[in-house]
Amino acid sequence: MSELTNRWPVHGLSEEAREACERHSDELLKPLGSLGQLEVIAKRLAAITGDPNPEVKKQILIIMAADNGVTEEGVASAPKSFTALQTLHILKGVTGAAVLARHQGCEVRVVDIGIDGGISHPQLIHAKIRCGTGNIVKEAAMSREEMVRAIEVGIEQVKLVKKAGSAVIGIGEMGIGNTTTTTAIVHSLMPEVPLDRLIGRGAGLTEEAFQRKKQVIEQAVAMHQVQGADPEAVLQKVGGLDIAGMVGCYLGAAHYGMPVVIDGVISMAAAYLAWKIQPEVIDYMFASHISEEPCYRYMQEAMGLHPVLDMNMRLGEGSGCPLMFHLMEAACRIQNDMATFADMDTSGDFLVDNR
Amino acid sequence: MSELTNRWPVHGLSEEAREACERHSDELLKPLGSLGQLEVIAKRLAAITGDPNPEVKKQILIIMAADNGVTEEGVASAPKSFTALQTLHILKGVTGAAVLARHQGCEVRVVDIGIDGGISHPQLIHAKIRCGTGNIVKEAAMSREEMVRAIEVGIEQVKLVKKAGSAVIGIGEMGIGNTTTTTAIVHSLMPEVPLDRLIGRGAGLTEEAFQRKKQVIEQAVAMHQVQGADPEAVLQKVGGLDIAGMVGCYLGAAHYGMPVVIDGVISMAAAYLAWKIQPEVIDYMFASHISEEPCYRYMQEAMGLHPVLDMNMRLGEGSGCPLMFHLMEAACRIQNDMATFADMDTSGDFLVDNR
Repeated sequence: MSELTNRWPVHGLSEEAREACERHSDELLKPLGSLGQLEVIAKRLAAITGDPNPEVKKQILIIMAADNGVTEEGVASAPKSFTALQTLHILKGVTGAAVLARHQGCEVRVVDIGIDGGISHPQLIHAKIRCGTGNIVKEAAMSREEMVRAIEVGIEQVKLVKKAGSAVIGIGEMGIGNTTTTTAIVHSLMPEVPLDRLIGRGAGLTEEAFQRKKQVIEQAVAMHQVQGADPEAVLQKVGGLDIAGMVGCYLGAAHYGMPVVIDGVISMAAAYLAWKIQPEVIDYMFASHISEEPCYRYMQEAMGLHPVLDMNMRLGEGSGCPLMFHLMEAACRIQNDMATFADMDTSGDFLVDNR
Repeated sequence: MSELTNRWPVHGLSEEAREACERHSDELLKPLGSLGQLEVIAKRLAAITGDPNPEVKKQILIIMAADNGVTEEGVASAPKSFTALQTLHILKGVTGAAVLARHQGCEVRVVDIGIDGGISHPQLIHAKIRCGTGNIVKEAAMSREEMVRAIEVGIEQVKLVKKAGSAVIGIGEMGIGNTTTTTAIVHSLMPEVPLDRLIGRGAGLTEEAFQRKKQVIEQAVAMHQVQGADPEAVLQKVGGLDIAGMVGCYLGAAHYGMPVVIDGVISMAAAYLAWKIQPEVIDYMFASHISEEPCYRYMQEAMGLHPVLDMNMRLGEGSGCPLMFHLMEAACRIQNDMATFADMDTSGDFLVDNR
């Protein structure tokens, strides 16, 4: 067991609340199990919260923003400066995830955990570990000490939002080049899957940049000798500060006993790392949508997660989380507001003769 | 071309609005196409409504309730009287679909198009064609004249809700025994698919009742000689009044130019019939969730529809539609509220030195 799992053990589930939730669900006015994932979600929320009638009234999307040194290899379709710019746009409420969060009525918390450059906004959380990571084809992304601090930033955010009353967290990111680091992580942890099946075109690469991306991933993974390595070594050598912060959020959610929603492929890579570090975090995780990036499915299937949205989305920023929050609310409404068979008037008195 | 398609031609799409919507979508602050189905939905709504910045602010779920004579063969897990009882529960707001509609904030309109028995509720729309259909293993479900009238009921409902300001319609049903009629319809229209691959356990049948259901479907389809028959003959002979009313809703949505959401397998069977009658209705249809009933996928794939929710749901009542309404709203918010690249401050002035 790693130092991390010793320091932040998981909160533990309430089997009693889960069973009470299930008993009530099975009494509701519907064929047994006919609301599928809405029932599954309600029962999982009951187990996590200890409340057989769970609610997720206050929701928050945490977005980890950081730069990746590997962008100097030409692996991304946008310039590195877009990380700072787009982070500012999220704070201003005009990006995809920000618009979806406003539609859902959830909060957004943006953390600068490693942007290469500074931005100024009253709502930005300043927790910069360093100005972007090292270029992974030349050096480790970060030192072990930096990685642990970045994970601690994520854990701390969960502690703070829980204290402020959030009932559920979504995990998003902003970091140009982070499908490259993500694919390097998955390629390291799944040596049995050919890289060609894992790699995608990120935000929209040309063929030339795509080939370059593949070469860069192969080179980084070979240089750091991380194929089959432990998850913490992989994160430190070929990962990113955004991903490390997100790993911390997942570990923190499990430690503080909060349900946590996974967004797309980068959010999933952080979830996968957290699961490799601490398998019990899976009980706190909810997959929102199937990302278009190919390596998403390998991780999702390995973890046995069921994403409920199939939207061909590949934006990132946590954009799938607000959509999932709405479905989690729906699951709570079903559990708490439907009538039961016992409430039912079966006397036939309701029938009138209007034939 | 059938009499129905002559009487209710489709409204027609605005290619101009669709193109204007696409141009704006491609200028938004995101990689091209990265919001997947949210972008597809916005463009389709633009084409239907003629508005490049579409909105779906007022939504309504129309539920067609009717009995099926075939229930006397023991093919359903609930007694026939549950149609009336559950219809009343929908009106009282305590069923799955009613709770989800309230969560979404959409209206519910319940139509008695053929309940065998009368119920009393101020909000119930009375449009009973007859007290349940004939038992399809002994006689035709309904006469051709009854079928046309039932379809007209659906068309009329769309006209009324459009006049009252609804922007989008969802189509649901309540009718014990209607997975049997649905499977008989699909078995008739897809003679190339073995019945074993189409048939499911409905709301939860025992093995014995399941075998009986299969036998009943084979018997009904053989007796009425409807394998490979035209869709109207299939609907009349082995369908139901609920399904006929829903077919009318789809034809009406296309005629009055309104987007329409498909729920589960029965709602999809009605959509499939409407599509067989009038192929252009497809442009107005939005698939919400993948039903657990096996024949859903055969129809959905034949029609080339993309359900965006994968929830293992099999409740019916239109329960998937309110969840889809939320995603359609999200698509409109993305289209109308995100910033464009032209709005962007790329001067670098936003950068501050906080390293």
